[in-house]
Amino acid sequence: MSLLRFCFRKNFFVFRSSVGVGCFSREISTQQTKKLDLRGIFPPITTPFTSKGSIDFEKLSKNMKRWNEIPFKGYVVQGSNGEYVYLNTSERIDLVRRVAHLANDKLIIAGSGCESTAVTIELTRKMASAGANCALVITPSFYKGAMSNASFKTHFLKIADDSPIPILLYNVPVNTGLDLDPNIILELADHPNIVGLKDSGGDISKIGNLVFATKNKDFQILAGSAGFLYPALMMGCVGGICALANAMGKELCDLQLLYEQGKHEEALELQQKLIAPNTAVTRKYGVAGLKQAMEWFGFHGGPPRLPMLPLNREQITELKKEFTTRGFKV
Amino acid sequence: MSLLRFCFRKNFFVFRSSVGVGCFSREISTQQTKKLDLRGIFPPITTPFTSKGSIDFEKLSKNMKRWNEIPFKGYVVQGSNGEYVYLNTSERIDLVRRVAHLANDKLIIAGSGCESTAVTIELTRKMASAGANCALVITPSFYKGAMSNASFKTHFLKIADDSPIPILLYNVPVNTGLDLDPNIILELADHPNIVGLKDSGGDISKIGNLVFATKNKDFQILAGSAGFLYPALMMGCVGGICALANAMGKELCDLQLLYEQGKHEEALELQQKLIAPNTAVTRKYGVAGLKQAMEWFGFHGGPPRLPMLPLNREQITELKKEFTTRGFKV
Amino acid sequence: MSLLRFCFRKNFFVFRSSVGVGCFSREISTQQTKKLDLRGIFPPITTPFTSKGSIDFEKLSKNMKRWNEIPFKGYVVQGSNGEYVYLNTSERIDLVRRVAHLANDKLIIAGSGCESTAVTIELTRKMASAGANCALVITPSFYKGAMSNASFKTHFLKIADDSPIPILLYNVPVNTGLDLDPNIILELADHPNIVGLKDSGGDISKIGNLVFATKNKDFQILAGSAGFLYPALMMGCVGGICALANAMGKELCDLQLLYEQGKHEEALELQQKLIAPNTAVTRKYGVAGLKQAMEWFGFHGGPPRLPMLPLNREQITELKKEFTTRGFKV
Amino acid sequence: MSLLRFCFRKNFFVFRSSVGVGCFSREISTQQTKKLDLRGIFPPITTPFTSKGSIDFEKLSKNMKRWNEIPFKGYVVQGSNGEYVYLNTSERIDLVRRVAHLANDKLIIAGSGCESTAVTIELTRKMASAGANCALVITPSFYKGAMSNASFKTHFLKIADDSPIPILLYNVPVNTGLDLDPNIILELADHPNIVGLKDSGGDISKIGNLVFATKNKDFQILAGSAGFLYPALMMGCVGGICALANAMGKELCDLQLLYEQGKHEEALELQQKLIAPNTAVTRKYGVAGLKQAMEWFGFHGGPPRLPMLPLNREQITELKKEFTTRGFKV
Repeated sequence: MSLLRFCFRKNFFVFRSSVGVGCFSREISTQQTKKLDLRGIFPPITTPFTSKGSIDFEKLSKNMKRWNEIPFKGYVVQGSNGEYVYLNTSERIDLVRRVAHLANDKLIIAGSGCESTAVTIELTRKMASAGANCALVITPSFYKGAMSNASFKTHFLKIADDSPIPILLYNVPVNTGLDLDPNIILELADHPNIVGLKDSGGDISKIGNLVFATKNKDFQILAGSAGFLYPALMMGCVGGICALANAMGKELCDLQLLYEQGKHEEALELQQKLIAPNTAVTRKYGVAGLKQAMEWFGFHGGPPRLPMLPLNREQITELKKEFTTRGFKV
Repeated sequence: MSLLRFCFRKNFFVFRSSVGVGCFSREISTQQTKKLDLRGIFPPITTPFTSKGSIDFEKLSKNMKRWNEIPFKGYVVQGSNGEYVYLNTSERIDLVRRVAHLANDKLIIAGSGCESTAVTIELTRKMASAGANCALVITPSFYKGAMSNASFKTHFLKIADDSPIPILLYNVPVNTGLDLDPNIILELADHPNIVGLKDSGGDISKIGNLVFATKNKDFQILAGSAGFLYPALMMGCVGGICALANAMGKELCDLQLLYEQGKHEEALELQQKLIAPNTAVTRKYGVAGLKQAMEWFGFHGGPPRLPMLPLNREQITELKKEFTTRGFKV
Repeated sequence: MSLLRFCFRKNFFVFRSSVGVGCFSREISTQQTKKLDLRGIFPPITTPFTSKGSIDFEKLSKNMKRWNEIPFKGYVVQGSNGEYVYLNTSERIDLVRRVAHLANDKLIIAGSGCESTAVTIELTRKMASAGANCALVITPSFYKGAMSNASFKTHFLKIADDSPIPILLYNVPVNTGLDLDPNIILELADHPNIVGLKDSGGDISKIGNLVFATKNKDFQILAGSAGFLYPALMMGCVGGICALANAMGKELCDLQLLYEQGKHEEALELQQKLIAPNTAVTRKYGVAGLKQAMEWFGFHGGPPRLPMLPLNREQITELKKEFTTRGFKV
Repeated sequence: MSLLRFCFRKNFFVFRSSVGVGCFSREISTQQTKKLDLRGIFPPITTPFTSKGSIDFEKLSKNMKRWNEIPFKGYVVQGSNGEYVYLNTSERIDLVRRVAHLANDKLIIAGSGCESTAVTIELTRKMASAGANCALVITPSFYKGAMSNASFKTHFLKIADDSPIPILLYNVPVNTGLDLDPNIILELADHPNIVGLKDSGGDISKIGNLVFATKNKDFQILAGSAGFLYPALMMGCVGGICALANAMGKELCDLQLLYEQGKHEEALELQQKLIAPNTAVTRKYGVAGLKQAMEWFGFHGGPPRLPMLPLNREQITELKKEFTTRGFKV
């Protein structure tokens, strides 16, 4: 393990001795100077559980096998659809290790955000050791009143400084109740180890403005939902991290391809048809709904961990309709 | 246009004779059979006031003269940027009459929404008599708890039934604190006298889904803000009613043209540059900011009515920056 | 009519000539120097309508006759339960005149708040002429983003300056979506023509703190709901303007009496029993529910104006339970 | 101690053998049949940190020594003021063990709520083993959309079933963005191992109604803030778990005593004076503000863990004023 690390920031070199908090079995590399290409679709993979509630690695392996056939750019392990708040630390790291092992050469983005700055740094380093190429760091949100711009800035800069892998900012107001200020995002975009933003807020104006304002920076923005993937691409996003990709990954890769080929009519039609199913497996029925839908598309979904409840019969019927009325057979 | 129409509702037939749009001196006419083409850009015009606080028709006239040179599809009189909640009934009708007179042959959409269903109907009929081609009807919102889907449905159906001109639904959560349920919009879209929706909420997924779901209906959706005009057009909206068009109407018409010509790169760049100025004259500084910006672009803005305050010096400086940093000279 | 008026504010005299905007038949008095005693219970009376939708003055008269037997301190005409947003200006003034006529010598507080400062002033003067002793002025709320503390301060100071009767501030976040800043309330409390605050927000800490901070000012605070009347009195409020008083006025006057007599156990029990019925006729079922409940207590409620809908059968059954499970026969 | 446990629920007896999931060094006891007396004041103690960021047990010990001289009923370890979301599991358990050791014979209520039901159960059992007399269980809140009443019911019932110590429900909307439905609270109140509720929402009507509705149940409600302690006691709460008690514990115990002695005038005055300081160390400046204020009252506060920032100089000056203007020397 390297005890010394060079950190380039704001036109001067900082020379630090690192005691390598919580990182094992893998050299902590020199800090990145970005250039991680995130163009493409990433499913924020769900975590399958056995009937007794432990992680079902066999089912995970089967899902991975099928997902690997889809032209995904990579996988997000422990985005909010991964039920990461229900996993303990060793489960979280273990899961990343397994997925990295099964992912062929696709990118692994691991969710490592915690409420505490120090714990996030520690977990980020462990995720890197476990094979993650990038860390997805959510805004802390428990102390909403205290999460000022200054707090967020301190949090993300410290993590970016200390992380051996690039950081992807994660803004998801529906879960956190907070919306990261564009001005802070712009400041953070200058850090050599912050590669981009996953924005699940869906404010297309905010996204478009951020794309414009970071045009000359090495900063990539990804749509956080399939519900606005096409307009987000049109506004300059480089791809999407979309819950729906767990079940309909091929369709989402197709959508990005249609966009790239300039086939706007086809792209529009596909996008429009995906909105209702997407809303159903996100806002409306959440992870339990997404896992249910995965079953219909040949993947292993299964029940979420408690207190999240699986859908009841009536909800399943309703969910099914959201797909069939848009022409998808389930 | 069909002069006779059968309207089936509530288990009995109503038989009406239609004398067509924009009817004066009263005979209230027959319900429309839609087919009002709303494709294009509409400024929701601001209302200039004299230093004593009355409507300044001279300045209005000068603004209209310049606006008429821009390829707008029409004018919205008394959208939320018109300070209509600060006008009394006779001012409201008078204003529509004047604008209709000055508008050459452009469409006049008049805001006629009030809290009460009956008062809205009465005002809508007066707006029609004053020359409006279409009525923009906002969701009532004072009794938020009571504004159920059933209430909204009753409200809009009664107004549509009794209005001599087509109705455009108006959803503007930032002012009303309410977001009209897509399911209700879909039901209302079937009414022969409801032509469309102005959605200012900016949820591009909701908009895209509504476009898809009303594909086979005679129903048009307009973006309610310049901040997401281009993605809204990409998602199937027919145009926009955009505050910013008061000051930068030409740019917005250009944007729609670029979209229609398939010049996506240019459209994207223009759209991206317009977001920050647009946010500044809407969310950030509101009508007072918009009126200030109008002055920079050669229009008469002037102060809003109290309790809305004009911008102070510091705010004006900040506002100016939002334009200049995006390359617009002000 | 007096053309001259002295207005004392902030250590200097302002000498104005008044042209008496919109006030008739009654001399506009010199501005109040407060001292209007608001101690007690006020029902914010509902407005009964005939089956054709006009104000039913006969039923109003019958309600007034029964209400007059209850030891109310006065009446609030056109609080939010009066459906004032569904009344036109002449209805509003007419209603105040009738109630003033029927109120024996009880206080008349008339809701005169509009979105515009000027229109509010005009209506307040008309309300005074119609017999109101005090004007209840709600926070304007349509342009939520523009309603800064500076806007509110300007609004209320101008109205207070120009009103012939004292002003009672009205903070009702559930309808307006805005919560008046305590610091602004404290500043306004110094004005000689602002007598107090009706706070319907229900934040008992805020209320207690305001009572403390205005201790040495001539400023009275009234609870805006029966749901927290007793704790509000305990915290120093002088009374309540409570929707529930339309139906259960005697009980609310009893509650204040028990409090004043220091009979805390009885007061507590009564208060506790009133919460569920109160919630039902406010937050849960609104004015339509309140009007329904009035029928059970011997008053004329009747349907609200559209778009507010009367309760359906199922809702009536549910509403009834909220009273019976608390021991009230309906 | 019995390894078997009878659990009475839903009209039949369940006979279970317990294998003691995740609990060491202490036998899991028979399920409680409530009767834990929570009457009184509890500080939700802050966690002091060393300059290097680890828990400062020496300072904790000094704080405990002083707190023990105040007539508190007990201590809450790892309420939201304890920065528990910044502590890892072993720190959490260790902290409870230390406090239990230092608390003389006062009650220990330990915060054991996590997002996952299973993890909460495991931690609750560990907390019990570490010396906690009661567990404070917050509503999970990350998946806001999925936290239905059914989810909450399942969550709390499972925890209550499996916990060796009584459960205190914890509703704190300002942190969680969720407000626990009163109907669910009423259902949960019937469980023999759920002793009460800490409500920090501050809706005094909701609290009063819950007190009434649980009158014949063995269920105690505690005010979650000093800002409404007195009215909450007046409405039937048994005490308070109040952030401010960290700094001004004596005053809060005095307030409850004044209430119990029926000295309402003195109680009112004290309550009113405490609101502004309380708001300052909760809503306004949060845990960082509370820790700062503790220093002025002779306790060890110190900095919070990142990303929470200590107050800056200007904020400290502002905070100080909130105490001095209410007559408290700091």
